[in-house]
Amino acid sequence: MFTELAANLIAGATLLRTTLQDPGTAELSAAVGRLKDIEHAGDDLTHSILLKLNTTFITPFDREDIHALASSLDDVLDFIYAAGVRLDMYGIHSTLPAAVELAGLVLAQCRTISSAVSALERHDDVLRLCSEIARGEREADYVARGAIATLFEKEQDPIRLIKHKELYEVLETATDKAEDVANVLESIVIKAA
Amino acid sequence: MFTELAANLIAGATLLRTTLQDPGTAELSAAVGRLKDIEHAGDDLTHSILLKLNTTFITPFDREDIHALASSLDDVLDFIYAAGVRLDMYGIHSTLPAAVELAGLVLAQCRTISSAVSALERHDDVLRLCSEIARGEREADYVARGAIATLFEKEQDPIRLIKHKELYEVLETATDKAEDVANVLESIVIKAA
Amino acid sequence: MFTELAANLIAGATLLRTTLQDPGTAELSAAVGRLKDIEHAGDDLTHSILLKLNTTFITPFDREDIHALASSLDDVLDFIYAAGVRLDMYGIHSTLPAAVELAGLVLAQCRTISSAVSALERHDDVLRLCSEIARGEREADYVARGAIATLFEKEQDPIRLIKHKELYEVLETATDKAEDVANVLESIVIKAA
Repeated sequence: MFTELAANLIAGATLLRTTLQDPGTAELSAAVGRLKDIEHAGDDLTHSILLKLNTTFITPFDREDIHALASSLDDVLDFIYAAGVRLDMYGIHSTLPAAVELAGLVLAQCRTISSAVSALERHDDVLRLCSEIARGEREADYVARGAIATLFEKEQDPIRLIKHKELYEVLETATDKAEDVANVLESIVIKAA
Repeated sequence: MFTELAANLIAGATLLRTTLQDPGTAELSAAVGRLKDIEHAGDDLTHSILLKLNTTFITPFDREDIHALASSLDDVLDFIYAAGVRLDMYGIHSTLPAAVELAGLVLAQCRTISSAVSALERHDDVLRLCSEIARGEREADYVARGAIATLFEKEQDPIRLIKHKELYEVLETATDKAEDVANVLESIVIKAA
Repeated sequence: MFTELAANLIAGATLLRTTLQDPGTAELSAAVGRLKDIEHAGDDLTHSILLKLNTTFITPFDREDIHALASSLDDVLDFIYAAGVRLDMYGIHSTLPAAVELAGLVLAQCRTISSAVSALERHDDVLRLCSEIARGEREADYVARGAIATLFEKEQDPIRLIKHKELYEVLETATDKAEDVANVLESIVIKAA
């Protein structure tokens, strides 16, 4: 079920990056609507995991860890969806290169999360993949800070500045949440050691 | 003691909604002062729970869970108080209908939290009440996003935009924190299953 | 190793306060660079603790608690660094007295954290020191709110308002993160009771 949740996460991150590459189309609202469906599918999967947890006697890992993993995966998708919402809510119709780059980093992290979730039962590669996810967060931090500094230098309109700044920040927070997933995975491996 | 903490939370949420309904009165600062007293009472209760935890041998649930529950309840009240502070600090004296609606959702969640805390020893109804709290968070998210989109369309003054946007966001965060309480309650029930 | 991590944290908080006292110098970027080195040193130490945790059979406290303590200490340093970054990224070159005051509160909390970490094996003084850290957070909250209220009254330029407001908020969040460390320490003591 976590494999399914990770696949759904990759679908969301992929759609977000595509949408950010060309937000000027008439289909922006439709794309954000599809992102919402993906987010709901994630919620339903998370809920099924928690219900199953409640009625199963034997689980492969600690119940609490399964709970934490499901919740943290859900958080990543929440911020992916939140970034899409900003596009629609703030009427952002031009391509922002730094936003596309950040969405690319989120997507890369989601793919690594998916690999780490698959590697979890074997344990061996998880810590290396977690470091890779953490590295993605640091890179996103760097990209977002550069984009925001440029914004404060160039943008004269405070209202547009607020919109773009928040989009960069929401994308950067998605990478923070991906790092939180890595921390949960790391602590599962540590406990099992 | 958790029953008392939940009752205090309801008192705070009730006062916040009343204050938001009519922030133009001369008594705004006094109302925010009373909210502060409620927040302090919550802090003291939380602290008593933690001290008692430290000197009691047998507890009805895991010590860690009691700690997490007390902390998360405290977070909800912190954001209820933070919303009141925004009114006073930013000099918001007109009624904002979306803010009143959001405060109504916070209050409904606090009442449901109180029911869930009471149901905790019997276990039976807790998961359903937790879903209800989560539903309140989703509704608040929807209301806050609509209010912020309208703000960006209509408000010309960037400083007023910043003030109102933040009030909506703080109220929405209060509903997130209420959902965190639901997650703690859920995980207590899951462990006990 | 936690003693070393706490000493590194004090170094970061000290450098931040010095930098905020006189951000107009030509050496601002160099100071923020040194802050970045301290932040990296903290990351490396945290990582070493987690790796060691993975290869050690006997630990003085729960593995999960060591993990939580290392992560929460890392969060404080992240926000200390984030405050420094704001100075450089936003080109803030004048001394803001409230920011200096907030940095002084962060530094005082970091010193208390260091004492609490040292007291952890003896247990006796930890809860009192945790209360002191929490008190620092409340004081910072009060200072930040006053500074932001003044900003909204006096500052006409919305873009400068956004910059200064965020600096105050990041500093205030550093004190929240210090309180999170206190909560972890408190829960370690509670478990050991």
